[in-house]
Amino acid sequence: MSESQGARIIVVGGVAGGASAAARARRCNERAEIILFEKDEYVSFANCGLPYFIGDEIIERNKLLVATPELFKKRFNIDVRTRHLVQSINVDNKTVSVLNRESGEETEEIWDRLILSTGAAPITPPIPGIDAGNVFTLRNLNDADAIKAFITEHNCKKAVVVGAGFIGLEMVEQLHHLKLESELVELQPQVLPPLDPELARLVQNELTDHDIKVHLGTALEKIQVENGNATGVELGNGTQIDTDVVILGIGVSPAIELAKAAGIEIGVCGGIAVNEFMQTSHPEVYAVGDAIDYQHGVLEAPQRIPLAGPANRAGRIAGQHAASDTADPMISPMGTAIVRVFGLTAAITGLSKKSAERNQRQNRSIIVVGKHHAGYFPGAQQLFLKLTYDPETGRILGAQSVGREGVDKRIDVIATALKFKGTVRDLTGVDLCYAPPFGSAKDPIHMAAFVACNDLDELTRIKEVDADLSGFQIVDVRSQQEVDTFRFPDITHIPVDELRGRLHEVDASRPIITVCHTGMRAYVAARILQQSGFENVHNLTGGMLMQRYARPELFE
Amino acid sequence: MSESQGARIIVVGGVAGGASAAARARRCNERAEIILFEKDEYVSFANCGLPYFIGDEIIERNKLLVATPELFKKRFNIDVRTRHLVQSINVDNKTVSVLNRESGEETEEIWDRLILSTGAAPITPPIPGIDAGNVFTLRNLNDADAIKAFITEHNCKKAVVVGAGFIGLEMVEQLHHLKLESELVELQPQVLPPLDPELARLVQNELTDHDIKVHLGTALEKIQVENGNATGVELGNGTQIDTDVVILGIGVSPAIELAKAAGIEIGVCGGIAVNEFMQTSHPEVYAVGDAIDYQHGVLEAPQRIPLAGPANRAGRIAGQHAASDTADPMISPMGTAIVRVFGLTAAITGLSKKSAERNQRQNRSIIVVGKHHAGYFPGAQQLFLKLTYDPETGRILGAQSVGREGVDKRIDVIATALKFKGTVRDLTGVDLCYAPPFGSAKDPIHMAAFVACNDLDELTRIKEVDADLSGFQIVDVRSQQEVDTFRFPDITHIPVDELRGRLHEVDASRPIITVCHTGMRAYVAARILQQSGFENVHNLTGGMLMQRYARPELFE
Repeated sequence: MSESQGARIIVVGGVAGGASAAARARRCNERAEIILFEKDEYVSFANCGLPYFIGDEIIERNKLLVATPELFKKRFNIDVRTRHLVQSINVDNKTVSVLNRESGEETEEIWDRLILSTGAAPITPPIPGIDAGNVFTLRNLNDADAIKAFITEHNCKKAVVVGAGFIGLEMVEQLHHLKLESELVELQPQVLPPLDPELARLVQNELTDHDIKVHLGTALEKIQVENGNATGVELGNGTQIDTDVVILGIGVSPAIELAKAAGIEIGVCGGIAVNEFMQTSHPEVYAVGDAIDYQHGVLEAPQRIPLAGPANRAGRIAGQHAASDTADPMISPMGTAIVRVFGLTAAITGLSKKSAERNQRQNRSIIVVGKHHAGYFPGAQQLFLKLTYDPETGRILGAQSVGREGVDKRIDVIATALKFKGTVRDLTGVDLCYAPPFGSAKDPIHMAAFVACNDLDELTRIKEVDADLSGFQIVDVRSQQEVDTFRFPDITHIPVDELRGRLHEVDASRPIITVCHTGMRAYVAARILQQSGFENVHNLTGGMLMQRYARPELFE
Repeated sequence: MSESQGARIIVVGGVAGGASAAARARRCNERAEIILFEKDEYVSFANCGLPYFIGDEIIERNKLLVATPELFKKRFNIDVRTRHLVQSINVDNKTVSVLNRESGEETEEIWDRLILSTGAAPITPPIPGIDAGNVFTLRNLNDADAIKAFITEHNCKKAVVVGAGFIGLEMVEQLHHLKLESELVELQPQVLPPLDPELARLVQNELTDHDIKVHLGTALEKIQVENGNATGVELGNGTQIDTDVVILGIGVSPAIELAKAAGIEIGVCGGIAVNEFMQTSHPEVYAVGDAIDYQHGVLEAPQRIPLAGPANRAGRIAGQHAASDTADPMISPMGTAIVRVFGLTAAITGLSKKSAERNQRQNRSIIVVGKHHAGYFPGAQQLFLKLTYDPETGRILGAQSVGREGVDKRIDVIATALKFKGTVRDLTGVDLCYAPPFGSAKDPIHMAAFVACNDLDELTRIKEVDADLSGFQIVDVRSQQEVDTFRFPDITHIPVDELRGRLHEVDASRPIITVCHTGMRAYVAARILQQSGFENVHNLTGGMLMQRYARPELFE
């Protein structure tokens, strides 16, 4: 910024976006005056670590404090003012009015460039009892301190967590570590709403295996309060739950009031609208983090993505551009997210099938069940990988994975392919690390890509896990023993290795779906049938194993 | 293959490439006659698992047998003939002559399509004693059985492993599990020759921490033999080592004799030359696996890549094309490889700096030292990541990583970016999974990309780890305590947080290299200096920490 060497850059809000922006601004412009106003006490803390701090998995509170105002001053010559609330922005005069929350003093501060990192606020539903002292949201270190203190001081034994998204699940896990009996309430009919339901079911089972009671498809309606604290909750379906503490994790809404009042454009998804340099409708005002609408890499449309990774990267770009009028454009995030739920990991990048449908994108999804490393090497863990793609172009739309090990790696690889607008054909040949402790020569990623390509090429067409099976002849090619364990009510049973000799048992007049345990043998069977003159043959993706989660009611 | 429906496909050699090809051929063509000749006993076994079987990490030998001839027959209607040696190919008559090694019978077999998966043979140097009974190479299950039996029966206490590449290191680790005192001999001046020397040094330290004696830069010259068995070896530098067993892991050479004798073209790197459908110079003869020259994805030139991943994928393509005249083209492998060495993992994709130099590719390398997941989350492990790129275009040339956790994930992400000919700018925005147990909001991959972009943009130019430092003023910005521990002999010491006030202590007439522990503070310092009028400022990549491995002699 040649003209603004020595200019004044004001950053509103710290943590991921604001702190990154301020530090990058300094590194790009030694002469600028940089002031960061943070309304709360801490300028830069690890908010993704808060659930783990509450649950004593992270013991040292200090570790959550990423950087102090003193460090910002000494290392970056940045003037950090905590407990300072920016109350309004005047874009014509280029000023902000700031309230010192300690002294009550109000001042007017001028800026040449303004960076908004105002974040988001936890949503609290307007229901009776919501204001009780022990109904908590979790957004900052003070919230975490308060939750921790309440649980200890009141010797809590029971908790209700409302919302089965990422934070809700992390909280349930950590409350379980603290030996609280926890119940989880979710308005959607599944846990982890960003995932497709059959994969979410795996997570749900992990929860119930750890004695977490899960209430799905029902809302929190009322909180019973005694002496100012919640003692129980009532759900929309009438269920009453006694509890010692309530944690709300039902999402956040972007803090856009400041920007909106200043006439800065708000995006279609409700966050502040920005361009690829994080400039708002006022080009000298930038916005980053949970307060904005990002451009979603797959949708190529605005989307709210209140996650730390994009916030950090956006902050860096805004800081550089504000300080030097130049920066590489923001690379669109893919909504990649991950959560550990006890021994299980669940992750997603790009679109789920559900979100593809919701966004009216033509889509197709296959599921493979593999091992996280060579099956013959000790400790191989089962891994479920769902790959969603465009059935015409083969372009990858997204992926989801659930398993005990190696989930993050598979999703990261596919997130990287998404960055390059890759297709399932590209994925067949990614040259991944292979040695027995780390993977397989044909990784689950390759297997998923192979299945998708076979589908695209009509070598073997796929039926999706939730497909309507009525009217189809189900050819189950598993062993007798497997079939005896669980099966669809009406099947033609021919073990795959006998199929060539028993083709006459298959009804050529009806469309066929082949099934086996995970889909591998059913694929071989489908190929045999197709090449033996049978038409309209499909393989049920993910096999009977996945049906246990996709249609649990059939197998109970 | 419309014309060859019902044609005869002969596959020469099983395991990764041949078995994949045969199975895929069947899935694509139910009517073809498919015969697989394997000269040894097993058609499909997990050869990457052999070291772990020898070392009792894999206990059940059966687990190594991926598929039996019976399974091939039943499931795929493939006629597998083990212990059948193909002795010659006649491409004019389209025949092979085959020796049944059991009966001694020789037959002539006709083919319409021929797939060669002849593999590679372990290299044995022509030195005295090489034929001793207990001098082993490791290529197949029989070799593994023989090594295991010899160690047990002779109650071996000491071993010499020759060759510190992937198999040599795996063997050393497994012999250590068996409580053999092992010494490792390597002709190159470093272990793991595919890696750059400073990263290899980390692996070397892990070996010596486990009491493995490492002999570098010296050849195996002579093997002392008594009663038919080796009792010791002599190295080029005169060292004598007593031993009970010798394992050779000094590489393989492609088994091209059959192809060569048939007039099939051999590639510039010594393997069989093939096109993207794995067709040789004779379009009805295919070749896959360790016997061929692959097209290397970064070099865009032929390269020998004797690894299981590419062999499997190539087999699949050859099988499909041979059976149906169509297939997606082979996606060029990147030479991605990984090895576990005790608690450490080392991996590479694409080019090292060394190989970039050898191939006369302009290159630049930066090193970051990060944590495999959020530093504040318990159990964070240090991870070294070296990123090599084209200093003009920013195109990624390769990456190497060494650490205790998360190495495979980082290399897989970069291998995926290589598939798309990605640049370091692309890497800055890959949207990777982040939650504290899995990564960081700014992953080491992002940090590496940021550093490389700063270098490309001349925001902060990098000095490489092995750069000539003479003539430079070293500005060490660490704390007094860190400097007291180890430092370059001649430094200007100014802690980073004091630099703005002590600029007058820096000699403006000399070019500057800033250093700190890993390069982060030195980056801030370099930015301060550059923006304060100092010219010719560089940051030593990887910091003093990496210098301990790059120039260990300075710090001993």
